[in-house]
Amino acid sequence: MASATVSVADICTAAKRASRALAMCDTAVKDAALHAIARELRAGVQEILEANEQDMRAGSEAGLQDALLDRLRLDESRVQAIAEGVEKVASLPDPVGEVLDGGRLANGLDLRRVRVPLGVVAVVYEARPNVTIDAAALCLKSGNAIVLRGSSTAAHSNAVLAGIASAAAVGGGLPEGCVGILAGGGREELAELSTQRDSVDLVIPRGGEGLKEALQAVATVPVIYAASGNCHVYVDESADLDDALAILMNAKTQRPGVCNAAETLLIHARTAPRFLSLALQALGAAGVLVRADERTLALAAPGAQAAGVQIEPAGEEDFAREFLAPIIAVGIVDSVQDAIDHVNRHGSGHSEAIITRDTASARAFQLGVDAACVYVNASTRFTDGGEFGMGAEIGNSTQKLHARGPIGLRELCTFKYLVEGDGHVRA
Amino acid sequence: MASATVSVADICTAAKRASRALAMCDTAVKDAALHAIARELRAGVQEILEANEQDMRAGSEAGLQDALLDRLRLDESRVQAIAEGVEKVASLPDPVGEVLDGGRLANGLDLRRVRVPLGVVAVVYEARPNVTIDAAALCLKSGNAIVLRGSSTAAHSNAVLAGIASAAAVGGGLPEGCVGILAGGGREELAELSTQRDSVDLVIPRGGEGLKEALQAVATVPVIYAASGNCHVYVDESADLDDALAILMNAKTQRPGVCNAAETLLIHARTAPRFLSLALQALGAAGVLVRADERTLALAAPGAQAAGVQIEPAGEEDFAREFLAPIIAVGIVDSVQDAIDHVNRHGSGHSEAIITRDTASARAFQLGVDAACVYVNASTRFTDGGEFGMGAEIGNSTQKLHARGPIGLRELCTFKYLVEGDGHVRA
Repeated sequence: MASATVSVADICTAAKRASRALAMCDTAVKDAALHAIARELRAGVQEILEANEQDMRAGSEAGLQDALLDRLRLDESRVQAIAEGVEKVASLPDPVGEVLDGGRLANGLDLRRVRVPLGVVAVVYEARPNVTIDAAALCLKSGNAIVLRGSSTAAHSNAVLAGIASAAAVGGGLPEGCVGILAGGGREELAELSTQRDSVDLVIPRGGEGLKEALQAVATVPVIYAASGNCHVYVDESADLDDALAILMNAKTQRPGVCNAAETLLIHARTAPRFLSLALQALGAAGVLVRADERTLALAAPGAQAAGVQIEPAGEEDFAREFLAPIIAVGIVDSVQDAIDHVNRHGSGHSEAIITRDTASARAFQLGVDAACVYVNASTRFTDGGEFGMGAEIGNSTQKLHARGPIGLRELCTFKYLVEGDGHVRA
Repeated sequence: MASATVSVADICTAAKRASRALAMCDTAVKDAALHAIARELRAGVQEILEANEQDMRAGSEAGLQDALLDRLRLDESRVQAIAEGVEKVASLPDPVGEVLDGGRLANGLDLRRVRVPLGVVAVVYEARPNVTIDAAALCLKSGNAIVLRGSSTAAHSNAVLAGIASAAAVGGGLPEGCVGILAGGGREELAELSTQRDSVDLVIPRGGEGLKEALQAVATVPVIYAASGNCHVYVDESADLDDALAILMNAKTQRPGVCNAAETLLIHARTAPRFLSLALQALGAAGVLVRADERTLALAAPGAQAAGVQIEPAGEEDFAREFLAPIIAVGIVDSVQDAIDHVNRHGSGHSEAIITRDTASARAFQLGVDAACVYVNASTRFTDGGEFGMGAEIGNSTQKLHARGPIGLRELCTFKYLVEGDGHVRA
């Protein structure tokens, strides 16, 4: 934990060395180490809470916002939940070694494509100490060494948590150096970490746009950016309106601050006369501000205002924004194709839903919309590693290369071709 | 073809628009379009050869090297081979729409992960006009629109080839704009292309280190770099020496200038007394210069020099280099683990081979070596999309994210999650 004299490069090089051994560890060894980590977290709860108290005091003195302090804060039940999360990861299937495909080639060689760990994954995150353990558990289970770079705001908490995880992992049989932690210093440290091309195989940032931009400017190591979600709910001509209303309200209001929450409602022109007033009343009752296009305003404005719904004209930019707040853009379209075009123009490729009873509309929307997750008659809120049966996730990708959608154990792996012959040479 | 007044952004935007329709094209339509391209290439051979003659004349006048002129040159049989290549791609299975996995989730949703095209792929290449058609065929078959950016040296050839491909594709039912071609201008054009984040989903460079560095400096769009291959042949203690010799010579001498050729021979210390003189004689007879480590020199030098083998001391840097020439580094190691460590330290993660009869050595090498392709008793030269049964490839990746090894039709795709419910909302 005393990493003051250990350089970023040293920690990454040690992680690389550890990753070679870790890639060959049996599932049972990895799972036993994860259970040891959970056990030691519970045993070390006083030490963890004392370190966290130091961070909390410094955070208060530095005038951190309440929301940030709440993210930073640990208590016994939160430590308990973190330990349970580690046990959950231990219970998941090991992604390493799975044969993805293969067979005997025309030239007589036997070829298998097999899933293997990436090697060293660096996780860069803000002041949430739980990420220290969540990320370490996912990386170790998938056979990767991890280098953690948290926020200096949580430095004491992170150091104790990572120290416990590292000691328990190594005590449980995993290689020395498999959990590395940086001091949580400034932008120079971030730049150094994200340019360790000889040792770091992937950087995963978990944080806002500022962190993303900082990394984009300096990283030469591959980075998977978890991106924003401008998600749509489209209510088709044939939609069941009860389903539509339930899904709309779930997608918009269940947890408006997350990336899979809906930001725009699109309604088919022939459905709008029946659905719009229902939707506006429900949104209004839930305290959601509506930014409506001209057709919506013309259809809805008098009744909506009488019903006390907050409604105002939408600008073009409202259809491109991730509000992450109780605000929704509403528009009327003339066809499922118009809805698809709208979503592809404005969406961020995260999660998109159509509510319809018509098989042709459902098929057109699923084929035509370019996004990680395309739903028929279900809420966009389901985009989540846990909901998808992946057990856990380290983030959610809207990029198209390597990982799209939830980033779970499988997405923390690459593959290699294993090829076997009997003296085969190429003609 | 008259693209003087059309901007890079315009061509990429048109390709993006085309990619939406292309993603929904049936296999039969794509295959018919590919057959139309092959037919029109044959019909247009005179026009193609006249354009190529212009490029050849300009190239000669500009003093291009013979090797470059040979790459640039087209003749009837080369055009014929290009057309046959397109027909071959048409005959391959369509990667789009394949269900990769899925099932009913615990929450009752039906989820499928389905392969879909990336969207718009930009291919940047040097003066090989055949790439214009090879790359277009692979992209169209995988449902991607393509933006071609060849060398100005081949501008006339490329313009005619791309014009024929584009007209035949659109005539065959594919969307307008699905084959775009840039003028082949300078570095500004490259910078503009590789920053079209709203329209270009992937850039694939096919060229040398200069092109790679130029792209690394400017690209904000994802790039898959086809990388160099510092490939090893390791002859284990238990190797069959006839197999070892045949594989060594195939890997080193069959085509020394390609990325899957061997650059280093490692020999187990207990095998060296029996194998080294055989290997050196064969390498010497094939005109290969040997750069040997100290142990190899001590063991082999007197006999080898008597036999006329060119042998000289290796520096550490010789074990890190891709010679791409009749030169090989030779070293002696004490165990399969030492061989693995050497390969992981010096290799580029491309193709690595062990020659052994021992199952434990084979397993250790395949598990421990971190490379795209790990061979047992076979030549590294097999790393190739065609040999791997992928039908064709657009390059070979040594990166770990998204595509590793040959980049075929499948690797030109991403996937999306299709999720179906019946009014499902998240609790």
